[in-house]
Amino acid sequence: MTRRIKLTIEYEGTGYAGWQRQDNAPTIQEEIEKAILQFSQLPEVTLHGAGRTDAGVHALGQVAHVDLPERFERETVMRAINHYLQEKRITILAAELVSEDFHARFSAKKRKYVYRILNRRPKPALEENRVWHVPVKLDIKKMQQAADLLGGKHDFTSFRTIHCQSKNPVKTLESFQIIQKEDILECWVEAPSFLHHQVRNMVGTLVEIGKGRWEPVYIKAILKGKDRSAAGPTAPPEGLYFMAVTY
Amino acid sequence: MTRRIKLTIEYEGTGYAGWQRQDNAPTIQEEIEKAILQFSQLPEVTLHGAGRTDAGVHALGQVAHVDLPERFERETVMRAINHYLQEKRITILAAELVSEDFHARFSAKKRKYVYRILNRRPKPALEENRVWHVPVKLDIKKMQQAADLLGGKHDFTSFRTIHCQSKNPVKTLESFQIIQKEDILECWVEAPSFLHHQVRNMVGTLVEIGKGRWEPVYIKAILKGKDRSAAGPTAPPEGLYFMAVTY
Repeated sequence: MTRRIKLTIEYEGTGYAGWQRQDNAPTIQEEIEKAILQFSQLPEVTLHGAGRTDAGVHALGQVAHVDLPERFERETVMRAINHYLQEKRITILAAELVSEDFHARFSAKKRKYVYRILNRRPKPALEENRVWHVPVKLDIKKMQQAADLLGGKHDFTSFRTIHCQSKNPVKTLESFQIIQKEDILECWVEAPSFLHHQVRNMVGTLVEIGKGRWEPVYIKAILKGKDRSAAGPTAPPEGLYFMAVTY
Repeated sequence: MTRRIKLTIEYEGTGYAGWQRQDNAPTIQEEIEKAILQFSQLPEVTLHGAGRTDAGVHALGQVAHVDLPERFERETVMRAINHYLQEKRITILAAELVSEDFHARFSAKKRKYVYRILNRRPKPALEENRVWHVPVKLDIKKMQQAADLLGGKHDFTSFRTIHCQSKNPVKTLESFQIIQKEDILECWVEAPSFLHHQVRNMVGTLVEIGKGRWEPVYIKAILKGKDRSAAGPTAPPEGLYFMAVTY
């Protein structure tokens, strides 16, 4: 008999090829699976994550589930994984028993991300790889106006990478708030789900608006265009943090 | 003719032997002096810092002054230093012209530090080298009570390292506030000046009180004892940040 365990995970994405297992590059999923194999001595194991974060993207609240034999207590599982991850920048924050019909990805009702921009001229000394450094002064009021226009249900084709595998480009963005904390702009977004690169493409577009290249109302034209080239560039991965999943 | 320039500096202390130049170890002072020599082509230069941070201690607002020939504009000086420090985790945040009687160390009226503690069981993934990880639950109310007893003018002999070169162990601690932000405890301290290791020794002692080893009132006995061994251990350097200097 196996039991399903839900894990809440924190990691620094720097140096990893992202969440999802790959043949020739280190990934977060693989590191945690290796740790589980080490303590459990099982022949194989599969971890199912709530979101496939890209290379360099961080998480403070990624969620994943795994099925393990009953003999492993959830508390023991958490300690054992953390033991084998001691040298890695990956930490299990919580382990809970969940029912067999819980699925980290498909049961998720809402996902929350924050994108952090360091908006000052000098480069970051302490926040390297943890923020997007934008040295040009940004107009935050205009960025928030543009963010407001992105809220709600839209066809987000202009904001997804051409590699996005989602069948439906229509998504509902429930919230997009920009909070200023001294030199840092935090862009908080919440939605049931996002298209591939949607957050980074929205932030990249907002930064163009903050620089004065476009007026906020141009967001309407970008959405209507349904064309990736109509929107701004993709913001770099190091500013993005996967914060929480609601079930 | 030379002019005195005041620099505000941010750095990550990890991997450095601290602020002050040493013969056989890399220091922040040396890195910045090397950058100044590179752009100025001067035969020698000396940077005077407001505080000599220890190995591993960070700064968001260290201040230093340097005398440079008039031909170097302050804006150019800042850009040139930052150019040569591109690969280092050191950044000049501001450069200002000051009068000849300004001294980064001796003119300082107040210094502000914050000490960050991560108070949760799992180790930090993203904040490694940037917090002191204390896995045992701390009683913050008791810690603040103890901090309040440290406030004011005292003989801080029990809180200074035996290597401290200060002639007078009597200091005035103007403020000691503990702020909780989720899992992080921020200990903010302000004083005209501190003894060597004073902040780390005060925090190390507060953590013992937070763990329940001593009651807050024991602070009075520690101060009265004027003996380093009466207080708690020295908190590790990675949680300490030199935040600001007031002139």
